Amino acid sequence: MNRLLITGGEVVTEAATYTADVLIQEGLVVAIGRDLSPADAVVVDATGKLVLPGCVDMHTHLEAPHNELDDPSEGAVTCDGFPDGSIAAAVGGTTTIVDFATQSPGTSFQATLEQWKQRLRDRPPAVDVGFHMIVTDMAYPGAEDDLARMCDEGVTSYKLFLAYKESPLWVDDSTLFRVAQVAAKSGALVMAHAENGGAIEVLQEQALQRGDTAPIWHSYTRPVRTESEAISRVATLCGIAEAPAYIMHVSCREAAEVVAYERDRGSRLWAETCPHYLAFTEDKLLGDWSEAAKYLVTPPIRENGHADALWAALRDGTLSVVSTDHCPWLTRWKDAATDFFTIPNGVPGIENRLEVMYELGVRQGRLDLTRLVDLLCAAPARLFGMFPKKGTIAIGSSGDIVIFDPRREKVITADEEMSKCDYTIYEGFRMEGSVETVVFGGEIIVRDGRYVAQFERGGFLPRARFSEPS
Amino acid sequence: MNRLLITGGEVVTEAATYTADVLIQEGLVVAIGRDLSPADAVVVDATGKLVLPGCVDMHTHLEAPHNELDDPSEGAVTCDGFPDGSIAAAVGGTTTIVDFATQSPGTSFQATLEQWKQRLRDRPPAVDVGFHMIVTDMAYPGAEDDLARMCDEGVTSYKLFLAYKESPLWVDDSTLFRVAQVAAKSGALVMAHAENGGAIEVLQEQALQRGDTAPIWHSYTRPVRTESEAISRVATLCGIAEAPAYIMHVSCREAAEVVAYERDRGSRLWAETCPHYLAFTEDKLLGDWSEAAKYLVTPPIRENGHADALWAALRDGTLSVVSTDHCPWLTRWKDAATDFFTIPNGVPGIENRLEVMYELGVRQGRLDLTRLVDLLCAAPARLFGMFPKKGTIAIGSSGDIVIFDPRREKVITADEEMSKCDYTIYEGFRMEGSVETVVFGGEIIVRDGRYVAQFERGGFLPRARFSEPS
Amino acid sequence: MNRLLITGGEVVTEAATYTADVLIQEGLVVAIGRDLSPADAVVVDATGKLVLPGCVDMHTHLEAPHNELDDPSEGAVTCDGFPDGSIAAAVGGTTTIVDFATQSPGTSFQATLEQWKQRLRDRPPAVDVGFHMIVTDMAYPGAEDDLARMCDEGVTSYKLFLAYKESPLWVDDSTLFRVAQVAAKSGALVMAHAENGGAIEVLQEQALQRGDTAPIWHSYTRPVRTESEAISRVATLCGIAEAPAYIMHVSCREAAEVVAYERDRGSRLWAETCPHYLAFTEDKLLGDWSEAAKYLVTPPIRENGHADALWAALRDGTLSVVSTDHCPWLTRWKDAATDFFTIPNGVPGIENRLEVMYELGVRQGRLDLTRLVDLLCAAPARLFGMFPKKGTIAIGSSGDIVIFDPRREKVITADEEMSKCDYTIYEGFRMEGSVETVVFGGEIIVRDGRYVAQFERGGFLPRARFSEPS
Amino acid sequence: MNRLLITGGEVVTEAATYTADVLIQEGLVVAIGRDLSPADAVVVDATGKLVLPGCVDMHTHLEAPHNELDDPSEGAVTCDGFPDGSIAAAVGGTTTIVDFATQSPGTSFQATLEQWKQRLRDRPPAVDVGFHMIVTDMAYPGAEDDLARMCDEGVTSYKLFLAYKESPLWVDDSTLFRVAQVAAKSGALVMAHAENGGAIEVLQEQALQRGDTAPIWHSYTRPVRTESEAISRVATLCGIAEAPAYIMHVSCREAAEVVAYERDRGSRLWAETCPHYLAFTEDKLLGDWSEAAKYLVTPPIRENGHADALWAALRDGTLSVVSTDHCPWLTRWKDAATDFFTIPNGVPGIENRLEVMYELGVRQGRLDLTRLVDLLCAAPARLFGMFPKKGTIAIGSSGDIVIFDPRREKVITADEEMSKCDYTIYEGFRMEGSVETVVFGGEIIVRDGRYVAQFERGGFLPRARFSEPS
Repeated sequence: MNRLLITGGEVVTEAATYTADVLIQEGLVVAIGRDLSPADAVVVDATGKLVLPGCVDMHTHLEAPHNELDDPSEGAVTCDGFPDGSIAAAVGGTTTIVDFATQSPGTSFQATLEQWKQRLRDRPPAVDVGFHMIVTDMAYPGAEDDLARMCDEGVTSYKLFLAYKESPLWVDDSTLFRVAQVAAKSGALVMAHAENGGAIEVLQEQALQRGDTAPIWHSYTRPVRTESEAISRVATLCGIAEAPAYIMHVSCREAAEVVAYERDRGSRLWAETCPHYLAFTEDKLLGDWSEAAKYLVTPPIRENGHADALWAALRDGTLSVVSTDHCPWLTRWKDAATDFFTIPNGVPGIENRLEVMYELGVRQGRLDLTRLVDLLCAAPARLFGMFPKKGTIAIGSSGDIVIFDPRREKVITADEEMSKCDYTIYEGFRMEGSVETVVFGGEIIVRDGRYVAQFERGGFLPRARFSEPS
Repeated sequence: MNRLLITGGEVVTEAATYTADVLIQEGLVVAIGRDLSPADAVVVDATGKLVLPGCVDMHTHLEAPHNELDDPSEGAVTCDGFPDGSIAAAVGGTTTIVDFATQSPGTSFQATLEQWKQRLRDRPPAVDVGFHMIVTDMAYPGAEDDLARMCDEGVTSYKLFLAYKESPLWVDDSTLFRVAQVAAKSGALVMAHAENGGAIEVLQEQALQRGDTAPIWHSYTRPVRTESEAISRVATLCGIAEAPAYIMHVSCREAAEVVAYERDRGSRLWAETCPHYLAFTEDKLLGDWSEAAKYLVTPPIRENGHADALWAALRDGTLSVVSTDHCPWLTRWKDAATDFFTIPNGVPGIENRLEVMYELGVRQGRLDLTRLVDLLCAAPARLFGMFPKKGTIAIGSSGDIVIFDPRREKVITADEEMSKCDYTIYEGFRMEGSVETVVFGGEIIVRDGRYVAQFERGGFLPRARFSEPS
Repeated sequence: MNRLLITGGEVVTEAATYTADVLIQEGLVVAIGRDLSPADAVVVDATGKLVLPGCVDMHTHLEAPHNELDDPSEGAVTCDGFPDGSIAAAVGGTTTIVDFATQSPGTSFQATLEQWKQRLRDRPPAVDVGFHMIVTDMAYPGAEDDLARMCDEGVTSYKLFLAYKESPLWVDDSTLFRVAQVAAKSGALVMAHAENGGAIEVLQEQALQRGDTAPIWHSYTRPVRTESEAISRVATLCGIAEAPAYIMHVSCREAAEVVAYERDRGSRLWAETCPHYLAFTEDKLLGDWSEAAKYLVTPPIRENGHADALWAALRDGTLSVVSTDHCPWLTRWKDAATDFFTIPNGVPGIENRLEVMYELGVRQGRLDLTRLVDLLCAAPARLFGMFPKKGTIAIGSSGDIVIFDPRREKVITADEEMSKCDYTIYEGFRMEGSVETVVFGGEIIVRDGRYVAQFERGGFLPRARFSEPS
Repeated sequence: MNRLLITGGEVVTEAATYTADVLIQEGLVVAIGRDLSPADAVVVDATGKLVLPGCVDMHTHLEAPHNELDDPSEGAVTCDGFPDGSIAAAVGGTTTIVDFATQSPGTSFQATLEQWKQRLRDRPPAVDVGFHMIVTDMAYPGAEDDLARMCDEGVTSYKLFLAYKESPLWVDDSTLFRVAQVAAKSGALVMAHAENGGAIEVLQEQALQRGDTAPIWHSYTRPVRTESEAISRVATLCGIAEAPAYIMHVSCREAAEVVAYERDRGSRLWAETCPHYLAFTEDKLLGDWSEAAKYLVTPPIRENGHADALWAALRDGTLSVVSTDHCPWLTRWKDAATDFFTIPNGVPGIENRLEVMYELGVRQGRLDLTRLVDLLCAAPARLFGMFPKKGTIAIGSSGDIVIFDPRREKVITADEEMSKCDYTIYEGFRMEGSVETVVFGGEIIVRDGRYVAQFERGGFLPRARFSEPS
């Protein structure tokens, strides 16, 4: 019998912290206790270290085409495929990913899902991978039933783009509302990239026409209220349709405020932010184009002050999740662009979330440990139908464990990252505390910070329907 | 010298009430005082009566094509032309109207305005008539400059439809934002019919497909939050563009709440409601189709309870104006429809506003007199660039005066109305207090409740740019 | 017949601005118009000048004992008696004052009022003077009926001190509530000095014990939330008793916020601020003791930033009135103190309100003229039962008029003030725009900025019961 | 070695639900797992049942004098002593109580605590008992230091009465503020009975004087806003002092709203409600006096509608805890009173909390199980310095466990209760689901719903200083 015993560590869940041994057997946590002494178990000593649930990253873009729908010619996809990206995730303490299956207009949801599951089979990931369905086209006959059936397939969240009006990804309010109706009936969560694409389109055109092409104009053409407006719209239309909603990558104070306002009024609304909004400010987009382009992401990183508001929102429960929105582009792709509009959007980060959040959040006194585990593990698992299998350490949970050494120092540098991206926005970032060991399904896949699995053990992870967190 | 002296009445303005004589000379108020005794003045004794400013109705649809843009074949316009409608207005105490010049897609704003001014010249109105510009197309070259120039022409408000997605009237958020930018620069006020056309379109299609065609489905397919959502969007996008905004026909509690929320946060936002939302409830849409169709208006009349919220919002300043949204359709036009979707929207009311609001508001204790005058006269005049020429009784104001007899009883009946509409939603409504005399530009045009002018004296009224009311 | 005609000025009321002549006859405004030409009128040419209603200052402390209740030995009263103070007021454009009749514990309200009316008869004021009743003792038999009867005497507002716990002025919540009940029944407005005396008492004792005696500790021992707490308490307890309430001298952002919150929720609550909170910041209390003591007032002048919040609150209607809280102490009285606690509280200002508010508000673009007139004239007159007799220019109003010359420059200096106070907090303040002429009851009492009346014409002003402003 | 193994139950904590065995050894939980098989353990089969943490009731009044301070003559204390009351608690699933040590004016806190600890030694309880210190007198020399030292003694919460102005329990704002300062420094939580004693005193006197003496007047003299006012005051004054605060027995919508408002603004404020506010409505106070008196509690049970608001507040996190406020009076004590004012306040409930909340909350769909465990176990343990020793099932927690049988039916009747109270407000209340077994410190003290311990094992429970829950 396959048994792994982690002894003497400080177990941290979203609810409590205590010293205990953790026994994993046949891939599941089967006992937590003091002085457990099962026969035949591989023993890992975690004394003096933190024993965390494997982290859940439900917002990544692996093997994602540029603007998700372009011609997928050489290189025109994000530079991390499922194997690379998931290995990078694992090294950073993430054992569950939810990525996107993107519907091309005219393709059915069923066919879309098949394509993406096939990719996973073709290039198996190191950890479990679920999919959200990106909806772009509800006009084909039977689209509503087809979308509803995704819940039977374990795809229980539907993502919509209210931004990028110039792209086929953008959906209008009719489509948003129609999808919300399907979600309400089928038991899915509506996810939105919430920015007002219409207003942004006007500001972009005007900037380009004026010759304001530098990277900073990516930010200037996306005022904070284009974000808060769209959040309010998502909350209201989903409210009418009686569907729960989830706002991706909240980037600013105004956006957090509208989330709080809607939640106070009883809207079934949840939201995330991402580490880059907490770690950087808008001035990264000023100066040298090539350097600036590395930080170009949507919504943009905001001015000084917004990060404080986001930290407060993480503490008071306005924001429920921190995900990475990992979307890695090689610098040559970023550099090939001649204006802010054509620079591929997105920053890498799948490998750094836990360590960066531990440093900025816990070590610098902004979050306590249980809240960190809630934001990175339990809350995303709950909201996306994976709890308590994923996201916590409880009897019956998956044997996905991170042993985190709070004294292990580390400096981030692209050269040593597992991600295929040739830069990291955290280059030179120093941390006290880093991932030592990662256990996935009871197997040690990361040891002393290095990926050691002989083959990739992950696969498609079907998820349960949405159920309101208490 | 043409002089009219109104003696002994109780002068009511938006600010105060006092007993005084009012002297009008060459069309303007030139003196207010006790015991004025000018030579050669025509004297009207107003002892025991109220002397009010001529009312301002800035939301009417005279000679308006069905859905404003259809083929204007016989009858397919609202049944009151400029002469008929303005005479009805005058009899009801309104001496200033602002109606709409509606851009057909492809037509310039300049050409549009010329058409509508020509209509006024062809069929002169009994009172002054200004125009808001309904914007449907910003895509033609030079549209922005052309629209900005409307302010030079005295057309200082631009109206947009966020509802009616199926119609060419509907505009998307890009257009809304672009118009707000022009308004901010040119000094205009953005007006919006604020309902989320996208969600409503879905609900309408689903209802029709199910065979739910009765008039009440007009209401069921327009949930209150489709209105509040759109208000929030207008406030936010106009806020980004730094343009002031005005919400038309607020119909429900949720809409009033979002107006209050945005105003509290500093949005430059104002809003109106209409008498039919205060006087009736949704059940008017139940039962006999032909009867129900008479009350079919957009947004729909709401359930019991909403009117109370609107009265409170009128008292506390959340709502600034009561206008009529007069949009009269003959019953044969209403009856010709076979489902709620094709019934022409709109109700008549231009003739009844002051009297109905006096009865429901002042007599029934919901509003005091100065607030009524503010809502019907001063506030619309201020917001739409006509104050203090219109909307108050002050030295230099237009000689537009209503003598209102608080003891003069009246029962509303379509047979006796000046409007060409063959029904009124207030049929049988009893009031204590009604309009006795109306003076327009110093001339008595209504005497003892009857229109007595020998010819129509009104014409196009250019308005000043928007200036924030204190 | 006594007639005064003011010609050609720009008449400014709380509602509108227009060019007109104003005719006053037998003390009342009897006509407003163009080219009025009454026989036998004294004519004052106001061409190019503003014609304002005489201002109303409903918060002054003339002949007020130290802490209002101390032994009134030599000098221990504020240094302006009714004649001096009211002349200073007049020169500054104020023609109506409401001061306080302060009940000594054990004295009936009726007896209290008689004392104060006698003072007025003994030392007649230059303008009209009403009284608020300061309630300190509700324990004597018949106190409630006695207090209610004050409304019959024209004393229709009851003031309570929630601050100064160490003094007999302070009242507990039982007394506050009992007075609110009487106010609700008798038709009075409850006024409160809203600071939490209990918490402040503790902080003061601790500071004094530590030896922190400098003037700045007056401010440090009165945190902003001691003010907001008390406002909330007044609003709630008056709400339970169904009495309207008025908050005096709002000094900070937090206080304005709670006023806004309560008003939004429907509380019948109004509030004022004073010019010194708008003109200065807390650092005036730092440095030289003698200089600092001049600015020591309660609540204290706040840190930088609060004034901006108060200006915003004046614009958006959260605050309804600007009064002076004129409470002048000779510098030798201020200097005699040995710690912040014994420095007599209060600053002069009765002479400067209109001019300072015009300069800071209108000239510097923070308020428009009609709003200024509302804040200084119409709103206090309405809330305190004097409108439209006082506070506006309308037919039948008192002939109290200020002719204000917007081009007349002036520098404030104590030497030239009519107040007996030997300093002014505005020393050296430069203004473009000042009071030229003041008319009181149809008589010119200030000409070219100087008091010219041969005798003091004012007297006790009874006021009407509270009536909710629309 | 003393070992107890609970097998096969559904473990429910505040965070998760899963099937597992729980092993308790030497009084502590040492292992949680599947198929645990320790040697020599007593085994309890919990298959098909819920395994919950022992519940925490931090608001009880055992052996409490009438009004806590009266002459403790025969019977003038609540009818449950520490043994009786704690046995009743145990039978109802509660294994930790925090009761009150009440300072008599003039007695030091140290002496007060000694008295109460002596009572516990004299009459040992069946479960652990901590104390909050009720502060009535801060005037004696050294009071502040003495109070601060309570934290060293494990008394880390200070309770204040803002109600009962007629009683020595009542404290003024100075005392409240002073105690908050001590709490901030010493690490204690300020607890408040938040009602405005001043306003209530007036209403009570007036009612009694009018002869309105019936029990319902207890309710009529305590308007809901007397509660919300006091909550706002506690939040603000504790905020100034930087002390955390806890509001006891929130009874109405208005109170919950102000808690939410203050929490949204960042106040460190938490609050509880009690089952009787959720189960009953005000009409229990109408009709037969003797029956009505049984339900007389402070704050009063409110009108229909308030309970819904409280349930919502329990769900959305506005309220953090449900405690009993168990305060049992024999009916003869209740019946002896001749008016509402002299009826001893309080209702029993210590025995019924878990079962009633399971029935009304979980069974009737208002709460889910993990939220119930949070409200009754984890949250009170966290807020009052006992987590994770008490309030959860984790490695190292106390071996306090409730085995709850969701199919075990029960009807509440006073005859079968362990409480000495001769009535229960839940008489005849039917439940599906009740407590089967209770384990305290690893010992079975309740078996098949009956108390089976041979002696009382509980004692004084010192608690840790306040630490903000994440």
